[in-house]
Amino acid sequence: MKNFLERRNKIRRIVKSQKLDALLVTNPLNVRYLTGFSGTASSLLVKPDGDILLSDPRFTIQIEEECPDLDAVIRPRSESTSKTLAKLLGSPSGAKGQKHSPTAGKLGIEADSVTIGQQERLFQHIPHWQSVPTKNVVEELRQIKDKDEIAKIRRAVGIAGQAFQYVRENLQPSLSEIDICIMLEHKMRLLGAEEKSFPSIIAAGPRAALPHANPTPQILKNQSHLLFDWGAVIEGYMSDLTRVLILSPNKKLQKVYETVLQAQAAAIAAIKPGMICEEIDAIARNIIADAGFGKHFGHGLGHGIGLRVHEEPRFAPSDKTELKAGMILTVEPGIYLKGWGGVRIEDDVLVTKTGCEVLSRDVPKAFDDMCSML
Amino acid sequence: MKNFLERRNKIRRIVKSQKLDALLVTNPLNVRYLTGFSGTASSLLVKPDGDILLSDPRFTIQIEEECPDLDAVIRPRSESTSKTLAKLLGSPSGAKGQKHSPTAGKLGIEADSVTIGQQERLFQHIPHWQSVPTKNVVEELRQIKDKDEIAKIRRAVGIAGQAFQYVRENLQPSLSEIDICIMLEHKMRLLGAEEKSFPSIIAAGPRAALPHANPTPQILKNQSHLLFDWGAVIEGYMSDLTRVLILSPNKKLQKVYETVLQAQAAAIAAIKPGMICEEIDAIARNIIADAGFGKHFGHGLGHGIGLRVHEEPRFAPSDKTELKAGMILTVEPGIYLKGWGGVRIEDDVLVTKTGCEVLSRDVPKAFDDMCSML
Repeated sequence: MKNFLERRNKIRRIVKSQKLDALLVTNPLNVRYLTGFSGTASSLLVKPDGDILLSDPRFTIQIEEECPDLDAVIRPRSESTSKTLAKLLGSPSGAKGQKHSPTAGKLGIEADSVTIGQQERLFQHIPHWQSVPTKNVVEELRQIKDKDEIAKIRRAVGIAGQAFQYVRENLQPSLSEIDICIMLEHKMRLLGAEEKSFPSIIAAGPRAALPHANPTPQILKNQSHLLFDWGAVIEGYMSDLTRVLILSPNKKLQKVYETVLQAQAAAIAAIKPGMICEEIDAIARNIIADAGFGKHFGHGLGHGIGLRVHEEPRFAPSDKTELKAGMILTVEPGIYLKGWGGVRIEDDVLVTKTGCEVLSRDVPKAFDDMCSML
Repeated sequence: MKNFLERRNKIRRIVKSQKLDALLVTNPLNVRYLTGFSGTASSLLVKPDGDILLSDPRFTIQIEEECPDLDAVIRPRSESTSKTLAKLLGSPSGAKGQKHSPTAGKLGIEADSVTIGQQERLFQHIPHWQSVPTKNVVEELRQIKDKDEIAKIRRAVGIAGQAFQYVRENLQPSLSEIDICIMLEHKMRLLGAEEKSFPSIIAAGPRAALPHANPTPQILKNQSHLLFDWGAVIEGYMSDLTRVLILSPNKKLQKVYETVLQAQAAAIAAIKPGMICEEIDAIARNIIADAGFGKHFGHGLGHGIGLRVHEEPRFAPSDKTELKAGMILTVEPGIYLKGWGGVRIEDDVLVTKTGCEVLSRDVPKAFDDMCSML
């Protein structure tokens, strides 16, 4: 509870500094981050003198359970959010007694959450309020994880790792990518995950060359390697890992694998507060290029994780963000050779005060450890 | 393939009738509906003389596989969609040689899909084009399902029903709501569903009074009834069912159950082309009110299903949509008594030329059939 209030107070200070009279938070992940409420279709109004959660009767009991200390307005389902806003906003501070002035106040909205249609509907009953699109106000705060958030991601990483170990022990040549996907995701649920972070990528042999492969009925028999990209969700927080099992080792596979692993290790070794995201990306990218695979690493080195599986900042060629303690990012170099296959190795890394901690360090990744004869 | 082109041609006619020079479809479900492409982060540009799918290199192979007959432009990841649009749009028909006129053409965008931030970015390199927000252009077409879509929803209903039957046969007093949820969702995957339609609601006893309950560690022992609200996805198309198992029958439970069932039966009996959605809603609502539970049915009677689990139209008090053959809607009256529990019964119903067909008719729902001693 205390965490949520602290977060809202930080947002309140930003709202003031941006000279807004209020901010309407509509992105459900931002609402959850600021209140603990995990439902949908609800908004948080942040005002200089307090916060109000706007919701509808479907969520009355859930709000009582999840955020007992927060003021909530449950509008009848026949009433629009705009009408509720009109009642709540009244005249803004600094404009008292001027309710009918052409501009009653400035209402910040989230530019990357509110659609054009929504904006029109929101301001229907508050036409005198000025709509001020804001960007990344809450998202920027979300980049730095606090203790609670780190603990949840740690658990999400742990469950993903345990489920992967279980699947390794139960692999059989007759299993298909889809069979393995279902087994993995089911095991994460049995271990306590509320959900998967995203539809798992389970890709054997040549299909591993597709960074976003969907699992197919292709069975493991006669395949050289099997790529897993998967994650678990704990109280909304996500893990995101990639490992490659070697089903039939060969020299080329080992060379590609070791190159990716070396690139990843070098990048991780450089992670510490003060480094710039693009610098970390360049370290891995240069190693892969030097090994002759530069054209075959077509995506960024990594991304923030949290309530979303892809958050800012990014380990990418043009991301100038400075690393700070409390950020958690993936580090996931890859080499993809069309028609042959691909290797990607991905860990979740917490930036600490002095360097970093690999949260997924217990999930093996040395080439020899990944050889998994069927 | 033919279906997709037919759908796009219908949209093209609407684009012309709305005097637009082009329409940019960005809602991923609408893109899928018009092309068969099931990925994300891609847009479809519908122009008078043809259609172009705009995507990035992550999806090159998937597009080749899923929509071989469609023109696609794969932009480099360093290039914005706006830049690609600038190349593609050129000067609009009717304004040839006037590339530098203040308004080069009218580009329709989807008001309920494009955020304020996206709109700004989209028009960065085409400032002379006028942004024209459109509403429900593709969604309205999606209301009427064709043969292919009906077949997919039929399969999604069938798998949901089979999985429910399996869970019934494997119920035990020591199982929790979460255990049952995991078992049900796993079984749907094993039966061929690519995903669940939404996080299943599995709610025992008093928790069944929450229309949107999340499953908890509460076990079945000593509970009077158990509500399931669940569905399966087949090639993107969703089913959505609700059933209540009676674990320990009593008079009140039977009275509530029979009232809901009677309300549902009467509403379904009235479904045929030409009826208005609110009329169907009223039939069920009146029966529940006459039985003295009017205050305890706090949501609409049903909603369209398709690529989304909640689509237009709605069986709701103010929905004036006229039913047409090919629409598929849920019919799901409920009675919720705080602290005691709730009963909802939900089927998926296809509007036919002469009446309707209950797609989920094979899933039992008579009170006696639902009594499931543990």
